[in-house]
Amino acid sequence: MRGFWISLVIVFLFGSQAEAKKVDIDKVEPMFWWVNMKNPNLQLMVHGENIAHYDVELNYSGVSLSRTIKTDNPNYLFIDLVIEKGTKAGKFNLNFTDKGKTKAHYQYELKKRRTSSAERKGFNESDVVYLLMPDRFANGNADNDSVAELAEKADRNNPDGRHGGDIQGIIDHLDYLQDLGVTALWNTPLLEDNEARGSYHTYAISDYYNVDARFGGNEAYLELSKECKKRGIKLIMDMVFNHCASAHWWMKDWPQKDWVHLHDEYTNSNHRKSTILDPYASETDQIQFSDGWFDRSMADLNQKNELLMTYLIQNSIWWVEYADLDGIRMDTHPYNDPQGMSKWGKAVLNEYPHLNIVGETWYKSAADIAYWQKDALNANGYNSYMPCVMDFQLFFSLEKAFLEKQEWENGLVRLYKSLAADYLYKDTGNLFIFIENHDTDRIMSTLKGDLNKFKSMMTFLLTTRGIPQIYTGVEILMEGKKSYGDGKMRIDFPGGWEDDARNAFTAQGRTDKENEAFNFLKKLLNWRKNNSVIHTGKLKHYIPEQDTYVYFRSNTEKTVMVVVNQDKSAKDLSLERFTESIKGFKSGKDVISGKTFDFTKGKISLAPNTSLILELE
Amino acid sequence: MRGFWISLVIVFLFGSQAEAKKVDIDKVEPMFWWVNMKNPNLQLMVHGENIAHYDVELNYSGVSLSRTIKTDNPNYLFIDLVIEKGTKAGKFNLNFTDKGKTKAHYQYELKKRRTSSAERKGFNESDVVYLLMPDRFANGNADNDSVAELAEKADRNNPDGRHGGDIQGIIDHLDYLQDLGVTALWNTPLLEDNEARGSYHTYAISDYYNVDARFGGNEAYLELSKECKKRGIKLIMDMVFNHCASAHWWMKDWPQKDWVHLHDEYTNSNHRKSTILDPYASETDQIQFSDGWFDRSMADLNQKNELLMTYLIQNSIWWVEYADLDGIRMDTHPYNDPQGMSKWGKAVLNEYPHLNIVGETWYKSAADIAYWQKDALNANGYNSYMPCVMDFQLFFSLEKAFLEKQEWENGLVRLYKSLAADYLYKDTGNLFIFIENHDTDRIMSTLKGDLNKFKSMMTFLLTTRGIPQIYTGVEILMEGKKSYGDGKMRIDFPGGWEDDARNAFTAQGRTDKENEAFNFLKKLLNWRKNNSVIHTGKLKHYIPEQDTYVYFRSNTEKTVMVVVNQDKSAKDLSLERFTESIKGFKSGKDVISGKTFDFTKGKISLAPNTSLILELE
Repeated sequence: MRGFWISLVIVFLFGSQAEAKKVDIDKVEPMFWWVNMKNPNLQLMVHGENIAHYDVELNYSGVSLSRTIKTDNPNYLFIDLVIEKGTKAGKFNLNFTDKGKTKAHYQYELKKRRTSSAERKGFNESDVVYLLMPDRFANGNADNDSVAELAEKADRNNPDGRHGGDIQGIIDHLDYLQDLGVTALWNTPLLEDNEARGSYHTYAISDYYNVDARFGGNEAYLELSKECKKRGIKLIMDMVFNHCASAHWWMKDWPQKDWVHLHDEYTNSNHRKSTILDPYASETDQIQFSDGWFDRSMADLNQKNELLMTYLIQNSIWWVEYADLDGIRMDTHPYNDPQGMSKWGKAVLNEYPHLNIVGETWYKSAADIAYWQKDALNANGYNSYMPCVMDFQLFFSLEKAFLEKQEWENGLVRLYKSLAADYLYKDTGNLFIFIENHDTDRIMSTLKGDLNKFKSMMTFLLTTRGIPQIYTGVEILMEGKKSYGDGKMRIDFPGGWEDDARNAFTAQGRTDKENEAFNFLKKLLNWRKNNSVIHTGKLKHYIPEQDTYVYFRSNTEKTVMVVVNQDKSAKDLSLERFTESIKGFKSGKDVISGKTFDFTKGKISLAPNTSLILELE
Repeated sequence: MRGFWISLVIVFLFGSQAEAKKVDIDKVEPMFWWVNMKNPNLQLMVHGENIAHYDVELNYSGVSLSRTIKTDNPNYLFIDLVIEKGTKAGKFNLNFTDKGKTKAHYQYELKKRRTSSAERKGFNESDVVYLLMPDRFANGNADNDSVAELAEKADRNNPDGRHGGDIQGIIDHLDYLQDLGVTALWNTPLLEDNEARGSYHTYAISDYYNVDARFGGNEAYLELSKECKKRGIKLIMDMVFNHCASAHWWMKDWPQKDWVHLHDEYTNSNHRKSTILDPYASETDQIQFSDGWFDRSMADLNQKNELLMTYLIQNSIWWVEYADLDGIRMDTHPYNDPQGMSKWGKAVLNEYPHLNIVGETWYKSAADIAYWQKDALNANGYNSYMPCVMDFQLFFSLEKAFLEKQEWENGLVRLYKSLAADYLYKDTGNLFIFIENHDTDRIMSTLKGDLNKFKSMMTFLLTTRGIPQIYTGVEILMEGKKSYGDGKMRIDFPGGWEDDARNAFTAQGRTDKENEAFNFLKKLLNWRKNNSVIHTGKLKHYIPEQDTYVYFRSNTEKTVMVVVNQDKSAKDLSLERFTESIKGFKSGKDVISGKTFDFTKGKISLAPNTSLILELE
């Protein structure tokens, strides 16, 4: 027992009879809930030795017990409550009785919700999301780098070890992020990961209700949420439901035999995400994909088990309500049970209709990605109820577009063609777009340090349709390659640790080149923040010609012309082709340089390898 | 005037008045029609000097004149007739009158339809389509190699010239094709192409109602149709509606100003087929794609012109009815006006609900191809009414799959992944699949003459889902590359000309290697013909492993296991993975070798680079 659990009030009552058993209630989850949720039903998972042998009683106005469910494991009891509309916040006892006599009770609390909690608005096209890995960002509290009760201790010399970054480190740099101009934060998971090795990435979760003590625990997360809100930064929680850690407490005592997918011998997922969509896939391959383990340390959860699925749904809602979240990112989305995920998405949106959820839809084709978006026109009727999907197709195009000369299908044409596939999406605004994340090569390595290409890439990413996500360190041109190994690629942010040789969170701590990148991004991000034309303005683009890709964003207030230019030579860009978009405008003012480009001569001069964002006048 | 037109009965009547004009009716199209069509409406295009100045009268039971339409060109008159259900076949005069006096008449015929004409059944998965270019296949009638009234004369020494192949040449080899085992014939266009150069490919049509005299004219085409029917070979007509020849008779006297897309200066299509689907495409790019010319010799028809669209629709129906067709292939499908094509497809299927139409949907992604299939689930509601689409995605996969070692996305995995996208198609059976056609490299060049790979490729093509199309000469391993230039790639079939050095239509005229390929194909095609399990049996496939791709076709009568094997080493294939498909079977008999493979030992031996088609027993 540690952290949050210490606050549990568990009272053991011993009867006068000699035969009375000790009733040891280890956990009740969710450990509290709220009144006036849309869904009146709540299912509690109670864990305790032989708990299934007891009856349950309660007495609270508006709350009734609809049923209890026993599984094949007597150490679990599931209690279904109905909480009527209008029930008042408060506490009541759950009494566990034997032959009418109370043997134990658990004081359960129903809290009051925040005002307008149900109406919270998730991240959207007006945002730019900053992704960071908490262990590698900043160490705000050196005291919690290692804790007694969790296996892995900090070792900053080990690329795959824990480096001590934590939530306090993020809080300490929220002003930095706000200044940079980002408006949403997605951090990789913070929930407890008690694996003995490699726990820094925290994708092997060992406790779904507690933030890892080495990151600061639940209280620190609440603090982060509050501090984000103050600065207008939306908070997105990374959720991992496909698998739990092999160190999860369930693993010692399964709630039910089929809680995870067990195989005669260890079976890895075949990682063929196509099997879920493929009308011809063999069941053998499909099952291995879905039910095989993601990794030896990650037990594949059986989301076809209704008790588990309810547990996960409630867990998500609990976190949104508890930590006042603005969004969810669902890890390895297609690896989950599709029907389970559909139920989950629907239930979460039922409580928070305007919340946003983005799934990790790692597919190469737009069609495969589009399949997973809420209300997609799927022939089989499948609806993921996931409003936002990750545009991996565009990511794969971006990886190559700036390294190639333009040809029929290469170079900037890749971007043009990627977007051309948008007719497949139900909601083209709700696409999560990115050039890099924690699982990919870093762009500055891909671009071999070319700052001009970097600027062009960011120009595109931050002015095309969708919700841009940038990855920590991009503002200081951080490099890294997948081939180094994940741990070595995910290096610490310089200045996040007290003894770091330099502090790149400050201008003085950055090189000139880094400052140039930082200032460019800062300007662009802050401009983007205040220009709704980039968020929701109509997009119109033209076939790239001679390494130059031109498009427009426009609404009733403003028209912006973006020239993504990779041409190595200086040239004049004839404006005639763009007549339908520039009609009525006489010039364009570049957002970055402030320079005005005269349109009346029918052409503008482009410097080599230089992109423009022109506000038309 | 030539060919068919000679049979037109045009009578000139001169009144007694001195002022009487000569009424010269040059053309009435369609030149005849049928009674008891589903659509009672018929629109005649009449061409003749100042024809629009005349009124029209007719007198035939069941036929009424609903309106006449004059355009901006007085040399055209469009006459809308209504032919009531039950109208008897027969002839009547269309009288062209001036102030009540008949100045000319045209004897119009309404013919009787063939029994069950409307119920004709198009090509489908039970078929294998043989594609040939008539000019390059066989010269059955040396007398028509050149004709006085058409510009280009035969010159077999010119790779881009006319070589003299004709319809009689095809008829002469129908027994050969039947013996080979093909069940459908798609020949590239036969309609008149009066361009001065390059007319051999015949995609620049100069007369929509007449087969080129150098191919034998309309009568020869009727004969071909009859001879095909006798042999159970379905006939597919290649239609080209996006453009007509710059030598078309319209070009000298447009029916209407906007009949074709004219540009201030010559404008080629940009060939960006994506602009039709792209929600962000600029109108400028979209218009250039659709309205730009395919080629200088191919004038882009304006299918938004309703008179033209009606002309094209009636032309298609006329040919189906006249030549007793089993299917249509629509050239450069997305280059046409999408709404026009939708109207066209709907109208043709209205008359012939079971006819098949395949469009040339040259896109790389399955989603883009699927968009064009009839009843596709398109967000914009677009319905092409085209039942069959060309699976270019699979084609592009096939080009590479047999040249690469298997990796995560390469080699045989390309085939597996291509098929996995089938969830996107409305009708996965109605996909036209091919390894090569007249516009691509020949597979034996791609495979560098490797006969084993050839057999594996054909094994796949002829046992997977869809309607396979093979290209003339594949049975004798004909080579050719796009880089040679089209004319040089499209070489003559050896033996198609009397003076050829050898006759590859006969076993004696083929090399041993060619005979091995021919006999392999013949066995496979004839087996496929009689095994409905390959036509419509359920497909189930397994993730390729070690250069081996295994799938099953099954129905209530039969199960076939296909092993497409590219492994360069001999190996044992463990059968355990396939348990769900082979349960209950003890062995498999190879269709080609006749050899039986025992399943009871849990594995079968595979020879290097050798595929199998096993009928399970």
